[in-house]
Amino acid sequence: MSLPLGYAYAATYAGIRQAEKDDLALIVSGLPANAAAVFTQNRVQAAPVKLSRRNLRSSRGSVGAILINAGNANCATRTGDAVTLGTTKAAAKLLKLPAAHVLAASTGVIGVELDAKKITTALPRLISNLRPDQFQAVACAMMTTDLVSKTAFAEVKLRRGTIRIAGMTKGSGMIQPLMATTLGFVMTDAMIPLAPLRTMLRRSVERSYNRISVDGDTSTNDTLVLMANGASGVRPDPKEMAGVEEEIAGVMESLARAIARDGEGARKFVAIEVTGAPTDTAAVRLARAIANSPLVKTAIAGSDPNWGRVLSAAGNAGVPFDPLQTDISMQGVTVCRGGLAAPFREEELKSRLDQPECAIRLSIRGRGKGTARFWTCDFTEEYIRINGSYRT
Amino acid sequence: MSLPLGYAYAATYAGIRQAEKDDLALIVSGLPANAAAVFTQNRVQAAPVKLSRRNLRSSRGSVGAILINAGNANCATRTGDAVTLGTTKAAAKLLKLPAAHVLAASTGVIGVELDAKKITTALPRLISNLRPDQFQAVACAMMTTDLVSKTAFAEVKLRRGTIRIAGMTKGSGMIQPLMATTLGFVMTDAMIPLAPLRTMLRRSVERSYNRISVDGDTSTNDTLVLMANGASGVRPDPKEMAGVEEEIAGVMESLARAIARDGEGARKFVAIEVTGAPTDTAAVRLARAIANSPLVKTAIAGSDPNWGRVLSAAGNAGVPFDPLQTDISMQGVTVCRGGLAAPFREEELKSRLDQPECAIRLSIRGRGKGTARFWTCDFTEEYIRINGSYRT
Repeated sequence: MSLPLGYAYAATYAGIRQAEKDDLALIVSGLPANAAAVFTQNRVQAAPVKLSRRNLRSSRGSVGAILINAGNANCATRTGDAVTLGTTKAAAKLLKLPAAHVLAASTGVIGVELDAKKITTALPRLISNLRPDQFQAVACAMMTTDLVSKTAFAEVKLRRGTIRIAGMTKGSGMIQPLMATTLGFVMTDAMIPLAPLRTMLRRSVERSYNRISVDGDTSTNDTLVLMANGASGVRPDPKEMAGVEEEIAGVMESLARAIARDGEGARKFVAIEVTGAPTDTAAVRLARAIANSPLVKTAIAGSDPNWGRVLSAAGNAGVPFDPLQTDISMQGVTVCRGGLAAPFREEELKSRLDQPECAIRLSIRGRGKGTARFWTCDFTEEYIRINGSYRT
Repeated sequence: MSLPLGYAYAATYAGIRQAEKDDLALIVSGLPANAAAVFTQNRVQAAPVKLSRRNLRSSRGSVGAILINAGNANCATRTGDAVTLGTTKAAAKLLKLPAAHVLAASTGVIGVELDAKKITTALPRLISNLRPDQFQAVACAMMTTDLVSKTAFAEVKLRRGTIRIAGMTKGSGMIQPLMATTLGFVMTDAMIPLAPLRTMLRRSVERSYNRISVDGDTSTNDTLVLMANGASGVRPDPKEMAGVEEEIAGVMESLARAIARDGEGARKFVAIEVTGAPTDTAAVRLARAIANSPLVKTAIAGSDPNWGRVLSAAGNAGVPFDPLQTDISMQGVTVCRGGLAAPFREEELKSRLDQPECAIRLSIRGRGKGTARFWTCDFTEEYIRINGSYRT
């Protein structure tokens, strides 16, 4: 599968993080790309989030480049706004772009000043490194506690030709996506006007990034950008738009699942499915309550088919449902029928729960049509170890 | 300090839990006591919660006894309602009380049938053990993952004589009190009519049990009962009621703090204070968001003064506030001033955070008068270990 046409990528080590590992990256589109983005809903917003929001507005959704750094969130910093403005302006100048066409994204520790000089010094080197095949280098440069880089790809044959989609994302802690979470960048070479692009992003986020959680904490820096630069020369016709959206959503779902799978300290990926809720929104609330329950997540870590905790977590979701009409299965084995214990072979199920992927399904009988899928991970001692000493 | 007059207590081992440790207990008031109670807000409610609620209504708040068991929550069980009804009726008969004057409370695993025979067989022995000085035995019998029993006492000299207050509680996991949490029983020998007793309970819960969290999970069995049997012969006069309420709230606050201190796996007790919020309710939401953040709790476990996580957690509370007007202190040391890093001696603060009690204070400058205190504990590997294998 080939990368979307018309984009170039670069990464370098600018000395922002202590470990000598790429920490500064750039995504550039040769043609001005239409771009839609979603940002954190946290009240505390990092400088790059504020600047990107402002630039997107003043450029009317036109983006030429995204400047990304890891190792420092540039949030709650005295010089934060000036640093983001200065470094994106410097990048714009070198790339011969209007300043408002450059977005910024940062990830790392909160409350530590970010040294602009480190970035401006590295910029010429970074820009001279720009290559269409350096996609993976950017995906790696933005990793923090991530153990693996996270990318996803699609290619769609349309009547007028082929378009390509590629996405990259990072994140494994401070993950509870409400709107968007972590950093994520999805590029396509299709020609898609701004209005449908925004709609596609909004709907795709709802079924991907908004359906994962690692620890229930929402970061101050979450940014997800979808860019369409039209470099393929292919404009999907109106009948094909739904199919294109499906592929974009698929790439984003794949990225979001990769985050849950790489949750800090996680040994297991957990897929939660809720059916029969009064509405889809209610189903999401039930699924999220199960996914965020430390007691459910530790039971999964211990391969303990403790379905009572699943039922209790659902009971705390603030959604009306009748426990006596509720069935629960784990790894496809019914463990609770009508709110009561169903007979199952404990040892057999325990060994099935030892698998790296676990499925929890909560079904409410009756006329409700609300469904939701949600992804999370188990909760292990390692999460505590990682987060007890993140800063130091 | 002496126990409230007119109550007797007993505990025994009925074989409900595997370890041979008392698991069945009884609190009896010689005179019918006025009683007010609050129960879990979980949609999934255990059989004893449903029965106690019903009995309190039909007896118009008159209670003679409370039958308590540990080792089994009697929730999501086929025979649960019949077991609770049968065992409380059997207790009522032996105690010569109307059936509706007996409440029930259970704690332990969810979804496992509770054998009524174990209780009815043990009841005669339990009742013959009733003694005014067996208060501590009951507090111990209801412990599950608790490491210590939790009790609190007060004595108040009023114009007409002295009244006594004694409370006991249990709990260290599945703790996020909304309304009430865990099991808690507070006895006084004052004469207090039902209406003011209910008001006292409601207001006292709001500033005690509703201000603690261990893991953000709300149990299916939470029950808190306040009883006033009048055995002292002392009726507080109207001017003295506020002072009595203060003492009852103090006992409940002390019990609630003991739960947070004994949180599963906790090494540290964490007191959170929020000031300057738009309202008290907003302050509680901010404090709860900080208390429930796994990232804040793991930072405390690692003695890491990572105030960015405190600010970010507050940002997720859904409460409007200006980060640039926000100060944060830890152990009395200002670590964030006006939303930015304040200079502090890292090593000195780290060693202060090694203490068994940690204080986090978030102050918003301006005209807001909302304040809240909230208590929680740190989040350690031990929590994961305890809960990965609770059932087995």
